Amino acid sequence: MSDTIMKDNSHPYVHGHSDRESERLHFQASKLAELLHDGTRYPPKSRVLEAACGVGAQTLILAQNSPGAEFLSVDISYGSLAQAKDRVLQEGITNVTFHQADVYDLPFKPETFDHIFICFLLEHLADPLLALISLKGILRPHGTITIIEGDHGSAFFHPDSPEAHRIIDCLVQLQRQGGGNALIGRELGHLMTDAGFTDVTVSPRQVYADQSRPESFDGVKKIFIAMVEGVCRQAIEEGLADKEMWEKGIRDLYRTTEQDGSFCYTFFKAVGRKE
Amino acid sequence: MSDTIMKDNSHPYVHGHSDRESERLHFQASKLAELLHDGTRYPPKSRVLEAACGVGAQTLILAQNSPGAEFLSVDISYGSLAQAKDRVLQEGITNVTFHQADVYDLPFKPETFDHIFICFLLEHLADPLLALISLKGILRPHGTITIIEGDHGSAFFHPDSPEAHRIIDCLVQLQRQGGGNALIGRELGHLMTDAGFTDVTVSPRQVYADQSRPESFDGVKKIFIAMVEGVCRQAIEEGLADKEMWEKGIRDLYRTTEQDGSFCYTFFKAVGRKE
Repeated sequence: MSDTIMKDNSHPYVHGHSDRESERLHFQASKLAELLHDGTRYPPKSRVLEAACGVGAQTLILAQNSPGAEFLSVDISYGSLAQAKDRVLQEGITNVTFHQADVYDLPFKPETFDHIFICFLLEHLADPLLALISLKGILRPHGTITIIEGDHGSAFFHPDSPEAHRIIDCLVQLQRQGGGNALIGRELGHLMTDAGFTDVTVSPRQVYADQSRPESFDGVKKIFIAMVEGVCRQAIEEGLADKEMWEKGIRDLYRTTEQDGSFCYTFFKAVGRKE
Repeated sequence: MSDTIMKDNSHPYVHGHSDRESERLHFQASKLAELLHDGTRYPPKSRVLEAACGVGAQTLILAQNSPGAEFLSVDISYGSLAQAKDRVLQEGITNVTFHQADVYDLPFKPETFDHIFICFLLEHLADPLLALISLKGILRPHGTITIIEGDHGSAFFHPDSPEAHRIIDCLVQLQRQGGGNALIGRELGHLMTDAGFTDVTVSPRQVYADQSRPESFDGVKKIFIAMVEGVCRQAIEEGLADKEMWEKGIRDLYRTTEQDGSFCYTFFKAVGRKE
């Protein structure tokens, strides 16, 4: 078990592993399923690797959208894998198997998979390019890789607020301190190309929330603001923000979800092919 | 002529009226025609007001996309109107007439128009809400209004650069000093609702440029960077930037259009209806 714990901590995950975070991830996945998974369907019998499935939030959607495909979902965390397995079982999904593995050192033979899918992984890695090159090795020729990442620098809103931008930037800085990159969405294109994939296409997928779609404000609160709130203690402890500034920033973020507010955020989806 | 000159200057236009700016506007309109005009087609015989047609950059596209509709394009500037007329004549377009008028004080009877179209106008006005209310008066019941605006705070790019953001912010500040709002895109939804329009829908239309579409980088240079460059002297004269910072910012903006760069910008299109 000590090995498990070590592995659990070997890639710092800025958002933590609380039940609340797990719920946030599932809520996010279900609300954004159409936006992010549009265009991602795998043929029957194809072998698809989902690298870093976490608590299985995207796994459910992947498996349900491509019921004939065979998914192998890996994660470094035994704890997250256990949650993912439970969830998949609850939903009666049978086309996924799980495996504990480190994305930098995957225990698969070259050219094992027809397709690879990654969501919200690269942003947490110190060397995303190395991870992509490693993944390319286990992809068969002409197989595809699909990557989805956010970009916290893409957030803008009304009313605008310097404090709100500053506390979002605290999350960006904390993620950077942990070796990650919360602005990675805008870099997917060149990372895929640098890793040697071809036919790379990047499609930004923008979320827009305003009063005409009240449920969109719910998403802003429960997905984005909740994520920022999750690093409050850490940001204050590390001196990136003081309590007053933090509270003003959070208040201003909630303010964007009132009557005359608006909120924009861009996810990026990139698809490439191995030659 | 003094009256003309007075009227020409009564709403400050931060981008100026040079030939270069006119060419930039036409280039922008043609490159973004599909992105921005998608969904905008008017039925034969419908009377459409284009408020603030400027040099006719959008007029050409409007008139060509809806050849049976009858456009009345107004602008406060006689100089711009003359250019717009020339351009429309050159293209052999016959379904547009032009009229000099102030958008705050339009010389039309109530309920004159079936539809109203505005592009890149509200960002320059000190009281966009008043302008919308005034426009609503001359729209017939059940008629539609379509508004397109940019939002300079939506720009993000790789490599990121504080200096690049600061010089973009100079343009935002200069526009604010002139009474305008370069961040108005994100506000279109509530402005339309506040003006009393119903069935308001806002669709953000995001431009994404990267190496997979080299012509997209051309657009970034000739539309966005050229626009920022256009206020260089004014920004430095007013002490918003020093020469060194400005040059670094411009270099960094061009840097985003190199091999591994990327650039995002969001336009907003809002459509509403008069009850």
